[in-house]
Amino acid sequence: MAKKPKNAISPSRVENYPQWYQQVVKAADLAETSDVRGCMVIKPWGYAIWENIQQRLDGMFKATGHENAYFPLFIPMSFLEKEAKHVEGFAKECAVVTHHRLEPDGAGGLQPAPSAKLEEPLIVRPTSETIIGATFARWVQSYRDLPILINQWANVVRWELRTRMFLRTTEFLWQEGHTVHATEKEARAETRQMLDVYAEFAEGAMAMPVIKGEKTEAERFPGAVATYSIEALMQDRKMLQAGTSHFLGQNFARAQEIKFQDPSGQEVYAWTTSWGVSTRLVGGLIMTHSDDDGLVLPPKLAPAQVVILPIYRNDAERAEVLPYCESLQSQLTASQYDGGPVRVRLDDRDLRGGEKKWQWIKRGVPLRVEVGPRDVAASGVFVHRRVQPMAAEDAPGQGGGKGASIPRDAFIAQVATMLAEMQQTLFDRAARAREAVTVKIDDEAQFEQFFTPEQSEQPEAHGGLAYCHFVDGPEMEAKLKALKVTARCIPLNGDEEPGKCIFTDRPSSRRALFAKAY
Amino acid sequence: MAKKPKNAISPSRVENYPQWYQQVVKAADLAETSDVRGCMVIKPWGYAIWENIQQRLDGMFKATGHENAYFPLFIPMSFLEKEAKHVEGFAKECAVVTHHRLEPDGAGGLQPAPSAKLEEPLIVRPTSETIIGATFARWVQSYRDLPILINQWANVVRWELRTRMFLRTTEFLWQEGHTVHATEKEARAETRQMLDVYAEFAEGAMAMPVIKGEKTEAERFPGAVATYSIEALMQDRKMLQAGTSHFLGQNFARAQEIKFQDPSGQEVYAWTTSWGVSTRLVGGLIMTHSDDDGLVLPPKLAPAQVVILPIYRNDAERAEVLPYCESLQSQLTASQYDGGPVRVRLDDRDLRGGEKKWQWIKRGVPLRVEVGPRDVAASGVFVHRRVQPMAAEDAPGQGGGKGASIPRDAFIAQVATMLAEMQQTLFDRAARAREAVTVKIDDEAQFEQFFTPEQSEQPEAHGGLAYCHFVDGPEMEAKLKALKVTARCIPLNGDEEPGKCIFTDRPSSRRALFAKAY
Repeated sequence: MAKKPKNAISPSRVENYPQWYQQVVKAADLAETSDVRGCMVIKPWGYAIWENIQQRLDGMFKATGHENAYFPLFIPMSFLEKEAKHVEGFAKECAVVTHHRLEPDGAGGLQPAPSAKLEEPLIVRPTSETIIGATFARWVQSYRDLPILINQWANVVRWELRTRMFLRTTEFLWQEGHTVHATEKEARAETRQMLDVYAEFAEGAMAMPVIKGEKTEAERFPGAVATYSIEALMQDRKMLQAGTSHFLGQNFARAQEIKFQDPSGQEVYAWTTSWGVSTRLVGGLIMTHSDDDGLVLPPKLAPAQVVILPIYRNDAERAEVLPYCESLQSQLTASQYDGGPVRVRLDDRDLRGGEKKWQWIKRGVPLRVEVGPRDVAASGVFVHRRVQPMAAEDAPGQGGGKGASIPRDAFIAQVATMLAEMQQTLFDRAARAREAVTVKIDDEAQFEQFFTPEQSEQPEAHGGLAYCHFVDGPEMEAKLKALKVTARCIPLNGDEEPGKCIFTDRPSSRRALFAKAY
Repeated sequence: MAKKPKNAISPSRVENYPQWYQQVVKAADLAETSDVRGCMVIKPWGYAIWENIQQRLDGMFKATGHENAYFPLFIPMSFLEKEAKHVEGFAKECAVVTHHRLEPDGAGGLQPAPSAKLEEPLIVRPTSETIIGATFARWVQSYRDLPILINQWANVVRWELRTRMFLRTTEFLWQEGHTVHATEKEARAETRQMLDVYAEFAEGAMAMPVIKGEKTEAERFPGAVATYSIEALMQDRKMLQAGTSHFLGQNFARAQEIKFQDPSGQEVYAWTTSWGVSTRLVGGLIMTHSDDDGLVLPPKLAPAQVVILPIYRNDAERAEVLPYCESLQSQLTASQYDGGPVRVRLDDRDLRGGEKKWQWIKRGVPLRVEVGPRDVAASGVFVHRRVQPMAAEDAPGQGGGKGASIPRDAFIAQVATMLAEMQQTLFDRAARAREAVTVKIDDEAQFEQFFTPEQSEQPEAHGGLAYCHFVDGPEMEAKLKALKVTARCIPLNGDEEPGKCIFTDRPSSRRALFAKAY
């Protein structure tokens, strides 16, 4: 029997997916738990990925006419009282500021000063609809002031009981778009436009295929008229909600008095939207592409797209190898990929070669280039791809294949193409994986079987994406809850198709998407 | 008598400088007060300036080897108890989180849930030395882990009684660098390097001349061994501390157990630094350059460097003028200034011409270009500079001069030069203003006279920068306090020069810089 190849991450995905995820985060040096319950420290490699996400999305927001602004971290408690539905869903578990001073407690420690109790508690923003809405109410007077198209990059806090790095943390980083429009039509168009921006970003930059759809009533943002999301399949067959866009109708405008004079001089309520993505995207990226050797980064978001590792045993070899690597770095950096110079790192740290090599594999760098004296002599480079082309998927080897010697000039000429291929491969691989676990189900028993490990044909890796007819309502939600399945969305690209709700037998005109979810 | 020229901002700088400042902030649409005490809303134009500051500084930090990361918003109260000196100076006035849930209060409102009181209160970070230090203690094991060169972009909260937009607000945005080094020498070099980066940024990008120096004991950061700052003169002859860089010695390392094995195998404490600038820089930028017509932006940081205003009376003229403006915008954008394309905005909003023009003057855009049918016919443009060249300073006109007709091609060819000239003019003008109010004082009575409005020869605009011999100590601090003057710093470029402390007559070897300050 062939020896089982050794992998860098233990447990493997098959052995224990949640544990594997934590180990990938750790091995890739992305983040760690902090001294504050539920809050993480985002380490430089993880933060650099987030910076690439930010920069790219920010460009897309600006290209669609949005401007950035910044609103207070704190929300007066009374603001949350105004919008009852909103309170219901969001404001319960949150950080409450009650004092504005510390003083010595008389026992060598500190305490909140009783004399500095706030008259009205402040909430650390869990989301900013209320405080931004109150501001917009001042900005909007006339139809000439509309539309208002604002985005904010910020930290938010939602007190979470069970946290998992990037996926669910008490504090997280995100962007929240908030817009005001004169008409329902414009506000609806904005909601859909931003959903499209998210989908384009997820598929184009993250290489993560997504399904765009509308949320069912139970999953709707509190206070919204309609919530749309992008949903992505992770390798454990669970789905991740990766971004949401809300059409808020006039609900928030009424609660916050966002009114304007229309061209006829009448005072009317405005129409608002909000939309957001967060550091959760980093979690989605990890779970979509990574393997049992660690993180796999889509080239477009990789902080380094190529890493060069000089290999030498003594000073004489070093004097030969290092300048060769430095000039290689300059030449690669002069190549263009994805609208900018190729990002190349030269790693000349004093570490054992094997340790260094595995660090970069676990960190997911797309191309790893080793250069030793023999490569210098041959004007070559030894190149490893972190991801093999689809056809070579089953080829043996560790950390993405054995690698190959290439003439230096040829590598420089090909580097952008190789990165583009890897970006495409990652997307294709994820799309193929999704296709393989997607089914249509027209029967409740079959639905239950599909989502119950013990009843499933493949208990280890059961479930997937089930498209089913359904009629929205509380009855269905109860059944789903028992199975730990959720209606992810009603896909926007779904065809009209007559059928019967698998839960209630009531007539239905289109299918919704069901899956277990994060 | 000549008619007094009308200005856009009232009161003028001479009439009431603090009020003038608030009016500039408002007229330029930079920020506004929010519904949360002491917190401001940074509006798109103000935030865009901050984004330009961020982007440029971020590049300078990365070029000097630093990486970005992100640490928790909250600091456990016990962390502040560890470092007594630090508590003393920073942690008293701060936002204290005591509960993690809201619940209905039984009267239709909400209240912090008594059952959700935190065991240990959390402090919203006023600065992050303690929480980052605790993290670094885990990261640093061996000398091989050093140096650690980290920067964080974040919001911080310091409960302020008297706030002024950008200059002093309860919540503000900033960056905080935190580094760990194996030796004192390296840590000291880092401290000075970052001070140089700040000075280069202030003078090169903000066109704001600064004096680099070391703080006296009374002005030192709590817990630091040495604090350095850049100090800039505002137009009211007060100085603004615009950035600080702290050499923390081993104080924080000891409090937080940041230890490492040196090459000989001995466990020793590390040496740390921290350094920061904030949205206060925007306040400094406003107060350095703006005039009685509103904001004046240094071209390098202007969100728009050129604004094009099409002028037409009817659709026929519009059809002629607008395409001309659009192609002008493309051509200008194709020009390079300051390492990137010229930033050009075309303002075709349906607003009266005068109102539109004054909006852009008040917002400080360096070049305003008006294009009407006659300009189209003559292949020309009508260009106004927000800032006149130094020689033309006293030329008549509003909002930076009367403007001039220029052939379109000539303007396109000159635009980068014009922007570079304005950037230089702003710096030169500010440097000249500083020189004009800088004195050497060797006598206490003269010092008092210089800083006391009633005793000054110019009560309306008294004071300035006084270089005096002094010996650091509490005696001097008391005298200064009475005069509302502070020792800004001991300038780094000051010459050794024997003298006597003007307050105590004790021998001194160099002069310090004294001024009233923000």
